[in-house]
Amino acid sequence: MGKCLPERLDRTFHALADATRRAMVERLVLGPASVSQLAEPFDFALPTIVKHLRVLEDAGIIASHKAGRVRTYQLAVDAMAGATEWIARQRMPHERALDRLGGLLAENDAE
Amino acid sequence: MGKCLPERLDRTFHALADATRRAMVERLVLGPASVSQLAEPFDFALPTIVKHLRVLEDAGIIASHKAGRVRTYQLAVDAMAGATEWIARQRMPHERALDRLGGLLAENDAE
Repeated sequence: MGKCLPERLDRTFHALADATRRAMVERLVLGPASVSQLAEPFDFALPTIVKHLRVLEDAGIIASHKAGRVRTYQLAVDAMAGATEWIARQRMPHERALDRLGGLLAENDAE
Repeated sequence: MGKCLPERLDRTFHALADATRRAMVERLVLGPASVSQLAEPFDFALPTIVKHLRVLEDAGIIASHKAGRVRTYQLAVDAMAGATEWIARQRMPHERALDRLGGLLAENDAE
């Protein structure tokens, strides 16, 4: 479960703490893209784009492969699962109590 | 909807990109705590603890109030709602298709 290591979570949350990188993730949700396609909406120089992509790739949020001279990026499988799971665990006791109540009512309905 | 502003999301994700700050959130999920209670598990000097708490408070993840000389911290309402919503929106088309299929099957069951 490498995705739950503290260092991995640090990298995931750090990668998401930037509007440009989040916009890149939003683009890749629609499908794979090349560096130039990913760079298009931004006014940054290519090295800056590549640096942002590297942060996302190091965090395991995106993956890339090279075919000939073109590198294609895509969203990683379970890209943000570790982050989602961590946030989901941080629920206050009253929220957990409501969840349990919801579960009991659903069981009751099913009977 | 201030919690959805890019700057707010930057701050939320940045605040969570640190294992110490995540441990503080995990502690506050259990209930409010003073600075010294929050500092207890760590080997850091108090100013470091206070700095971490300030990052969490600036991100709107925690809130504090002072009674006499004691400042008490607690988890904010909807502490990480913006971050959760943003991550939830980043689902791949095949995941959304599965959700729709699940919805259709559920409707079918209800009929």
